[in-house]
Amino acid sequence: MKTILNHRSIRKYKNDPIPETILEKILEAASRASTTGNMQVYSIIVTTRPDLKEKLWECHFKQNMVKEAPVVLTFCADFNRFNQWCELRQATPGYDNFLSFTTGAIDALLASQNAALEAEEQGLGICYLGTTTYMAHKIIEVLEIPKGVVPVTTIVLGYPDESPELTDRLPLKAIVRREVYHNFDEKEINELYHEKENSPFYLDFVKQNGVDNLAQVFTDKRYTKKDNVAFSKLYLDVLNKQGFMNNE
Amino acid sequence: MKTILNHRSIRKYKNDPIPETILEKILEAASRASTTGNMQVYSIIVTTRPDLKEKLWECHFKQNMVKEAPVVLTFCADFNRFNQWCELRQATPGYDNFLSFTTGAIDALLASQNAALEAEEQGLGICYLGTTTYMAHKIIEVLEIPKGVVPVTTIVLGYPDESPELTDRLPLKAIVRREVYHNFDEKEINELYHEKENSPFYLDFVKQNGVDNLAQVFTDKRYTKKDNVAFSKLYLDVLNKQGFMNNE
Repeated sequence: MKTILNHRSIRKYKNDPIPETILEKILEAASRASTTGNMQVYSIIVTTRPDLKEKLWECHFKQNMVKEAPVVLTFCADFNRFNQWCELRQATPGYDNFLSFTTGAIDALLASQNAALEAEEQGLGICYLGTTTYMAHKIIEVLEIPKGVVPVTTIVLGYPDESPELTDRLPLKAIVRREVYHNFDEKEINELYHEKENSPFYLDFVKQNGVDNLAQVFTDKRYTKKDNVAFSKLYLDVLNKQGFMNNE
Repeated sequence: MKTILNHRSIRKYKNDPIPETILEKILEAASRASTTGNMQVYSIIVTTRPDLKEKLWECHFKQNMVKEAPVVLTFCADFNRFNQWCELRQATPGYDNFLSFTTGAIDALLASQNAALEAEEQGLGICYLGTTTYMAHKIIEVLEIPKGVVPVTTIVLGYPDESPELTDRLPLKAIVRREVYHNFDEKEINELYHEKENSPFYLDFVKQNGVDNLAQVFTDKRYTKKDNVAFSKLYLDVLNKQGFMNNE
């Protein structure tokens, strides 16, 4: 569908607020996504207050779109409501484990993509924030998130103040495997990355980053082992504190 | 958008195969979803061979739609291709940790929802299989999945041979929190679940399950603590074996 193929991440937003009727459509669309056993074990925190957005902006590595965009949606794996319901019904919930976290996270992420597409359908721009998993421990403080709930992803929403080009993608065969997972050989990897590595945009990107090639921008600058290890520990600690690591 | 609001999970399929041109559109749609840093750290395994589908059917708790539907899409968090590329470029990948798994899983799940919606747009039916995280260790064997790759979700695709009613959802306020996470009190929980718990469909569902109320169907029959703990251990073991638990 056209909306899917036209997706661009928007990083500059106009000041205009989002009418409540449009926001409701987006949330309604989110709620129609598939959910495990129809348990709906996720939640969406809708934040518009400037003081809270300022704090979220700090959580999200001070990316300005968090302050500029009128609405920030934080999608969470959420067994809190479900557990409360169980306890009120003499049913003993057994959802304090890693599998339950993944179940809630899957629910949250499918809902987020529905929200993203409906927002774009309504003329809004969106951008996903990967920083949600890095900074979940801080987001939990800012948004007063209780036990049983873990932030998984964030979308900012607003009327676009830029119209970027469509982002490049690798050839489809880089992500699609047929029947079983046939592994790649060196020749295939070189072919898959050839166009990307030789595009003027990425050649300049490599130069600006002061490294030898595009792969090194990722490993040495943008997504380093040191950061990944630190954020892994923090996120596992969040899962533990929020009550999802009782796996015995 | 209409496709989003009309989603139903389809569990009975016709024999008709899916034309390759339609399958390509679905995969193309998947590839347009947001992906962290445009790394595209996920993969989609497209399985149509009856012998493989038979084995996947066993993995997925023998749900017949896995054999009946002509196409099974297994979505994986995938740093294998990315790591191979880095290693061929004298770049040292640091993606053998839990954060990298979550990054790949998010990529995979956003792509899966695009695929699901595009499939429905093309007149197909879909169903997500939550059993993917439970049985990832077996799926890895069947689909010959290498290190660096973890199955996260599965969609079966095909022409529908049933037209079920729209699935009920809780009122929107059950999943939406405004500004920060205001917790629920007993009265609110009772209100949110009132319609569902009193619908003839669920009253009958409770009776068939031989328990006292709907919450107990979940805790005592469908998603028990015993199963969740067992599957948590298995999935964490998969993450470890596939190389995503080096968090030091």
